[in-house]
Amino acid sequence: MNETRWDRLLLNANLATFAGDAPYGLVEHGAIALHHGRIAWVGRMDTLPDAPDALAAVVESLDGALVTPALVDCHTHLVFGGDRAHEFELRLNGASYEQIAHAGGGIASSVNATRAASEEQLFAQSLPRAQALLADGVTTLEIKSGYGLELETERRMLRVARRLGRELGISVRTSFLGLHALPPEFRDRRGDYVSLVCDAMLPALAAEGLVDAVDAFCEGIGFNREETRRVFERAKQLGLPVKLHAEQLSDQGGAALVAEYRGLSADHLEHLSEAGIEAMASAGTVAVLLPGAFYALRETKLPPVAALREQRVPIAIATDCNPGTSPLLSLRLAAGMACTLFRLTPEEALRGVTANAARALGLHDRGTLAAGQRADLVAWNVRQPAELCYWIGGGLARRVYVAGELVSRRKPSRRSPSAS
Amino acid sequence: MNETRWDRLLLNANLATFAGDAPYGLVEHGAIALHHGRIAWVGRMDTLPDAPDALAAVVESLDGALVTPALVDCHTHLVFGGDRAHEFELRLNGASYEQIAHAGGGIASSVNATRAASEEQLFAQSLPRAQALLADGVTTLEIKSGYGLELETERRMLRVARRLGRELGISVRTSFLGLHALPPEFRDRRGDYVSLVCDAMLPALAAEGLVDAVDAFCEGIGFNREETRRVFERAKQLGLPVKLHAEQLSDQGGAALVAEYRGLSADHLEHLSEAGIEAMASAGTVAVLLPGAFYALRETKLPPVAALREQRVPIAIATDCNPGTSPLLSLRLAAGMACTLFRLTPEEALRGVTANAARALGLHDRGTLAAGQRADLVAWNVRQPAELCYWIGGGLARRVYVAGELVSRRKPSRRSPSAS
Ligand SMILES: [Zn+2]
Ligand SMILES: [Zn+2]
Repeated sequence: MNETRWDRLLLNANLATFAGDAPYGLVEHGAIALHHGRIAWVGRMDTLPDAPDALAAVVESLDGALVTPALVDCHTHLVFGGDRAHEFELRLNGASYEQIAHAGGGIASSVNATRAASEEQLFAQSLPRAQALLADGVTTLEIKSGYGLELETERRMLRVARRLGRELGISVRTSFLGLHALPPEFRDRRGDYVSLVCDAMLPALAAEGLVDAVDAFCEGIGFNREETRRVFERAKQLGLPVKLHAEQLSDQGGAALVAEYRGLSADHLEHLSEAGIEAMASAGTVAVLLPGAFYALRETKLPPVAALREQRVPIAIATDCNPGTSPLLSLRLAAGMACTLFRLTPEEALRGVTANAARALGLHDRGTLAAGQRADLVAWNVRQPAELCYWIGGGLARRVYVAGELVSRRKPSRRSPSAS
Repeated sequence: MNETRWDRLLLNANLATFAGDAPYGLVEHGAIALHHGRIAWVGRMDTLPDAPDALAAVVESLDGALVTPALVDCHTHLVFGGDRAHEFELRLNGASYEQIAHAGGGIASSVNATRAASEEQLFAQSLPRAQALLADGVTTLEIKSGYGLELETERRMLRVARRLGRELGISVRTSFLGLHALPPEFRDRRGDYVSLVCDAMLPALAAEGLVDAVDAFCEGIGFNREETRRVFERAKQLGLPVKLHAEQLSDQGGAALVAEYRGLSADHLEHLSEAGIEAMASAGTVAVLLPGAFYALRETKLPPVAALREQRVPIAIATDCNPGTSPLLSLRLAAGMACTLFRLTPEEALRGVTANAARALGLHDRGTLAAGQRADLVAWNVRQPAELCYWIGGGLARRVYVAGELVSRRKPSRRSPSAS
């Protein structure tokens, strides 16, 4: 009989566990055992309880490769119809925002394209984007609605999000973002739209099990605090956690509002005030920074990283993958941008796409390498954690494991990230 | 008998030919025929001379995918020992440049690591970087020496560069960059080092067939105009073309100097003067912009793009792939940065990584899709050229052809981009 203790044992790894207080939670010359989809054991090679070959059904040596928790992208708008490459091109050819809006550009163009797409088309267009994130090490992904702005399309977006999770075998957490923009048909009836979102759309979609959290865009060009509060109240009644697009372009006091509801996260935060930081610190609300949008919009106002550090607000980093302001298909690149543009340390940036990103989704079973956690992890083509932020571009993920199973490297999709 | 006219025929492509004056030289609903390593025919599907199946041994439909010339990376320092991720990390943890220099950081650390690496080690460390560029669509690559600063190591770097070309089946053009930095052992003997470079190293390496062009770093912290002129004079005697790192951190008049020698290119150019632009325009010297270094160094002074346009100086874009100031492994991302950071149009950026990049290497047989050109091309997972600049990250190259042959998608290297 060959009874082994574990399903799989990875040897000779440089483990960035993000557990404990050591930088990166680093365990050099480490080993990690996976069993029944969970991490069963983590430690130094020389503390393994027995001869390695006897311990697991599959034993692999990683030759000193870096292993981290699989990445968690906690803020994306990855399901959408069409793309906005043409708008990007018009702008670089000198068109003004007004001219682009006049030509049907901006978020309205994504709303139109998403409303026009069937569920099958929306899935086909979104799949390569999710595959790109997965190839780069992401196995848990938040996806928001918000390009439908009416029940049927919002539902279709959330159903596609769920299906992406099922078909790729990854975890998808959905956020309902009905308060993303005022749909054109409600131009003169803001209150009616907010009522529709709170009283009809959210309850219906929640009842269908399509909503894991509720989000809103609290901004001068979005929805104000009172409107946001209405949808948060409804979320509270429904027992759903909230999060918020807050203080991206101006200080609306959104961070304090979401903290008041003990929200999971406040996201963007370039214009975050001291009061907002204090409220987040008290509530345990995660600060999600989105350097892709900062980069693409050529913003200059930096989020208050030093103050967030000082107040010990956990910081997460996400792609914000969306067609207008952040067509970013790599969470590792977002982490690198967080270093280069926002001056996070590589350790902060990498905690921000693992442990703290999981926390921003309310997930406590992932984002660190520790016994009992889900066996979602990545072996990289580098040895040191800082290299994940240092190298710009390139495919550094060598092997991605989901619930203990190696994700087979799929053939690159033959579909465009945008084309149907 | 089944006599066919061509080896391979690609149908249903959106061809960005960069030939002719139309935007992108676009041919929609196009077809392209490859024969004996060359492009044999390019045109609209409906002008094909016969039924497609009868025309070629292999006929493939691309379902509307974008096809471009394979990309040309005309400025890299891709062969080096070690990496500088630790220095990146130290800086983000607050270390000053002085502290890092004191700890053996900066270019000296790359020189030490490169000198210490065997040819085999240097090859093994550089290979994954070249593979990353190839996976992203680059089939012609310039590689500079300049981390040896003594004959043996400069030779080893250039031999590794040649071997990368052979083993990957791609085109590598070498540049000798002896005047990259003053080696520590010559600290008080600048003139002696310049003499060694001009009178011993360059002639020896040129005689071995290792040098396709001669480069220098003309800068306050590099070499001055007179020193640069000495190496250019020697290059001229040897019949080698020249190029120059010019006006990156200050205006040294380097662009005018390299134009005086009818140089292939002047590279960086953030501080380029009007006089430099005029000299380049007269000489036909290409302006190579390097947005990766601009991004990584968080520079704010932009290269004079409007004036280059006005004076019709051809603009190319390159990765500048190097361990200190641009650890960039994607030329497509460099093109996107050229749009977002330097405000090039997508068409300018894409000409900059195809037609104009080939010109910057003195190559006239690639960089466009036209009959007679080398059959180096890429079929992408997108339909519109602007998407190549719009999407940030992600693996968009579907198929890469070199001299008419499909590059088999290699297994991702198990080596680190840096580790031996
Ligand atoms: Zn967002
Ligand atoms: Zn350079």
